Amino acid sequence: MALTLYELVGAEGRKFSPYCWRIRLALAHKGLEAESVPVRFTDKALLAFSNQKLVPVLVDGETVVSDSWDIACYLEQAYPDRPPLFGSEDARGLCRFVNDWAGRVQVSGIFRMIVRDILDRLDPEDREYFRASRERRLGKTLEEIQADREQRVEEFRTNLSPLRATLRAQPFLGGDRPNYADYIVFGGFQWARIASPFILLENADPIRNWRERVAGLFDGLALSEPGFDW
Amino acid sequence: MALTLYELVGAEGRKFSPYCWRIRLALAHKGLEAESVPVRFTDKALLAFSNQKLVPVLVDGETVVSDSWDIACYLEQAYPDRPPLFGSEDARGLCRFVNDWAGRVQVSGIFRMIVRDILDRLDPEDREYFRASRERRLGKTLEEIQADREQRVEEFRTNLSPLRATLRAQPFLGGDRPNYADYIVFGGFQWARIASPFILLENADPIRNWRERVAGLFDGLALSEPGFDW
Repeated sequence: MALTLYELVGAEGRKFSPYCWRIRLALAHKGLEAESVPVRFTDKALLAFSNQKLVPVLVDGETVVSDSWDIACYLEQAYPDRPPLFGSEDARGLCRFVNDWAGRVQVSGIFRMIVRDILDRLDPEDREYFRASRERRLGKTLEEIQADREQRVEEFRTNLSPLRATLRAQPFLGGDRPNYADYIVFGGFQWARIASPFILLENADPIRNWRERVAGLFDGLALSEPGFDW
Repeated sequence: MALTLYELVGAEGRKFSPYCWRIRLALAHKGLEAESVPVRFTDKALLAFSNQKLVPVLVDGETVVSDSWDIACYLEQAYPDRPPLFGSEDARGLCRFVNDWAGRVQVSGIFRMIVRDILDRLDPEDREYFRASRERRLGKTLEEIQADREQRVEEFRTNLSPLRATLRAQPFLGGDRPNYADYIVFGGFQWARIASPFILLENADPIRNWRERVAGLFDGLALSEPGFDW
C-alpha cells in the first residue's frame, strides 16, 4: 500500500483546501495513510502527470485519481473491507446531492466572504497569481468581493437552513454515524477556519455542535491544523 | 394487512398534496396498497384520532402515524422485506437532508408561485378557509403573493441547481434506482402540476427528464391524477 495525496498548501505549509480536507477525512475514516505532497498554486506543474490542474490528486500504486468526488468513490471501491464512506449505493447517490449542494450553496457562499483573507494565508509567491486569477473571474478586486460580507452572511445562514434542520434532528448527515457527506460539508467550514477570522455561524447555531463532533473525529485530526477561532 | 391513508383532496376528489404524494409513491415502492380516505381542509375533524391536524395520516392496524417523514420511516421499519425506501441507515440520514432541503427550498418556493391557483382547485367549501388562513400567515392576498412569479421563478430555478447537477450525473437521487428522496422531491412538482398551469422548469432543464422517469414508475401512477401540462 503506497498512497500519495497531492494537496494545496499556503504559507508555512498550511493545508486549507476544502476539497483536500474532504479526502483527508475520508482517508482517516477508512483507516488509510497517505504520503502528503504539498502543492502551491504556482506549483501546478507538479500535477501534470494527472492530466489536469486541480488538487486533490490521489495516487495509489499505478492508479491516479483527481477530483474529490471521484477520489471518494475510488476509495470506497478499492477498499471495500474498510469502514464504508457511503454505506450503500443509495447513500452514494444521495451524497452526490450533498456534494452538489455544498459546492453551489456552501463553498461558493463562503468563498465570497473570505477570498481576501485567503490571500494573507498564501505563500508570497502565490499571491499575485491568486489575486489576478480570482479578480479576472469575478470582475472585482478581492477587497470589493469580500466587502459586503456582514450583510452577505445573513443570507448565507439562511441558505444553510436545510443543513441546520437535519443536524437538529440527528447527530450527523449520515445519521447516527458520520459518512462522506459529513466530510463534504465539514471541509468547507474547515477551509474557512484556516483561512479567515470571519465568523460564519451564530453562537447558538446547532451546526456548531455538529462541527465540533466532526472536528473531534480521528483524535481531532481537523483541529491539528492551526486556524482561527470559529 | 389493512392500511388506510388519509389524504388531502380538492374539488372532484383531486389529490394534490405534495406530502401525500410522497407517501402514495412510497407505498407503491413497497408494493403496499392502502385504502384512501379523502380529507378536505374543512374536514380536519376527521383527523382528530391522530391528535394532530395535518395530512397525510397512515393507519396500519392499531398504529397511527402522521407526518410524511415519520410515515416513510414507519413503512421501512414495519415492512423490511419489501423493497427498501432508503437502502441503509446512512441513506435514511441523507434522505432527511433532502426532506429538509425540499421543504425549505423547493416546496416553499413553489408555494408562493401557485398559491392563488391552488384556490381554484379546491372544493368551494374549502376556499374561504384556505384564503383566510394563508393570507393571515403571509400578510398579503393570495393574488399579491403570486403576482411576481415570473420574476421569482428565475431565482427558484437557480435554487434548484444542486438538484439539477445531481440529476445530470445520475438517473435518480438514489443513484441508479429511485429511493424515497426521489419521491420527496417529485411530490413538490406533482403538487404544482395538479394545482397550477404555471411552468416551473425551462424546456431544456434536465430535471424534466428525471421527472418523467419518476412519473413513469408504477405504471404511471403519478400521471393517473389529472393535471396541467408541465
